[in-house]
Amino acid sequence: MQRYLLTVSYDATNYCGYQRQDNGITVQEVLEGVLQKTLGTSVKTTGASRTDAGVHALCQRVHFDAETTIPPEKLPAALNCRLPFDIRVLKGQAVPGAFHARYDTVQKHYIYRIDNAPCQNVLTRGFCTHVKYPLNEKAMHRAAQALLDEHDFAAFCAAGGNAKTTVRSIDHISVERQGDIVTISVRGKAFLYNMVRIIAGTLIEIGMGKRSESCILEAFQTLDRKVLGATAPAKGLTLAQISYGAPIDEA
Amino acid sequence: MQRYLLTVSYDATNYCGYQRQDNGITVQEVLEGVLQKTLGTSVKTTGASRTDAGVHALCQRVHFDAETTIPPEKLPAALNCRLPFDIRVLKGQAVPGAFHARYDTVQKHYIYRIDNAPCQNVLTRGFCTHVKYPLNEKAMHRAAQALLDEHDFAAFCAAGGNAKTTVRSIDHISVERQGDIVTISVRGKAFLYNMVRIIAGTLIEIGMGKRSESCILEAFQTLDRKVLGATAPAKGLTLAQISYGAPIDEA
Repeated sequence: MQRYLLTVSYDATNYCGYQRQDNGITVQEVLEGVLQKTLGTSVKTTGASRTDAGVHALCQRVHFDAETTIPPEKLPAALNCRLPFDIRVLKGQAVPGAFHARYDTVQKHYIYRIDNAPCQNVLTRGFCTHVKYPLNEKAMHRAAQALLDEHDFAAFCAAGGNAKTTVRSIDHISVERQGDIVTISVRGKAFLYNMVRIIAGTLIEIGMGKRSESCILEAFQTLDRKVLGATAPAKGLTLAQISYGAPIDEA
Repeated sequence: MQRYLLTVSYDATNYCGYQRQDNGITVQEVLEGVLQKTLGTSVKTTGASRTDAGVHALCQRVHFDAETTIPPEKLPAALNCRLPFDIRVLKGQAVPGAFHARYDTVQKHYIYRIDNAPCQNVLTRGFCTHVKYPLNEKAMHRAAQALLDEHDFAAFCAAGGNAKTTVRSIDHISVERQGDIVTISVRGKAFLYNMVRIIAGTLIEIGMGKRSESCILEAFQTLDRKVLGATAPAKGLTLAQISYGAPIDEA
């Protein structure tokens, strides 16, 4: 048996999230179905990130064990010809048997896109959240810097998470505007359930002047979810990158 | 009766083009249906551009005559609450009775977007044409400059057009890359049937090295459609702007 790592992108609009579940069709279920047809055997995959319903991915990472004569670099073409167009395999590679797509993650990169035009752009509406009130992206960027480094992010966690600790560390966060699109970019090793969407929702309210920049420090002190903004809609969020460092990322 | 001008955007994925026809649902039909419900009377609209099936618009212009107590600046909100999310009215304004959305056009601006990544981006696939072979956008830009100014564009016209003359003038054309996205931007007063898509398809073949840059001059000399590239897919094309000049554009 050989362990393989796939880099997978998906438009999540039509799926109930990445991870297999009873309530609806998921990306994992479709991917495993196509792997089974392509490799001729049942395959169990492990995804690096359990993206929620509606959260897109440009770089989900998925490992599985299989015996196949298909060279790893041919897996994208072999799988893509059977996959729907909203799921694309970007890369296939052989990895050591001890490699684990989730546990070996060094850094995840999420981007949250906001369409800040008075009326929603019809072309980007599938992957941008529309906020018609003008956002002050400079105030959002400034406030976001308080999130950097290690903190107890308990206030930034939705009920339903099952993390052992709510201490997390953010390596980088920025807010930039290009025309009508305001993009929040966040990097860290791991995130709590809904953490990036609560950060986005809080920064949106700060950018609208509805909430003070100091609410982030207050959230770290009080650990109270209620001092933060609403959870921003899933469709604005995209998992942009998962890094493992060398040698996996250089292969 | 008052004449009104609407600025309308649409994602054309689910429509058989802008103009009403018997074969399928069109943007015009949906818009007129919502106008009728909103204004309480049957309304006949005239669009500035008959965008083909699959061609998107960020700034279609549509005029109609009606009697209504709704102020023109409230028309977008009044219509958008009934329209599907893939059609948005961006602006409403009162115009003189002699104004005509098509005949008074001073300039149209089209953009053609190409996703030039090895594998298609799942998020932008609705409004970008995927070309996996690396494109030389500098060669495309250089070749495109031969299209500027007035020429007989007969070779750049699909069968089925009914223009009296095939002489047209291009005011501006550029090809630029931002990451994986190559954007062709074209401005002119009027275009022949499929003209922008034939230009895009020809520039794509030039960018791949499949066709010589001199084919454009040859097309002007021979008026032969066959010396040019294939008609590029509709979904990459977006009608970006229609200008009327002052006072309409400044209102």
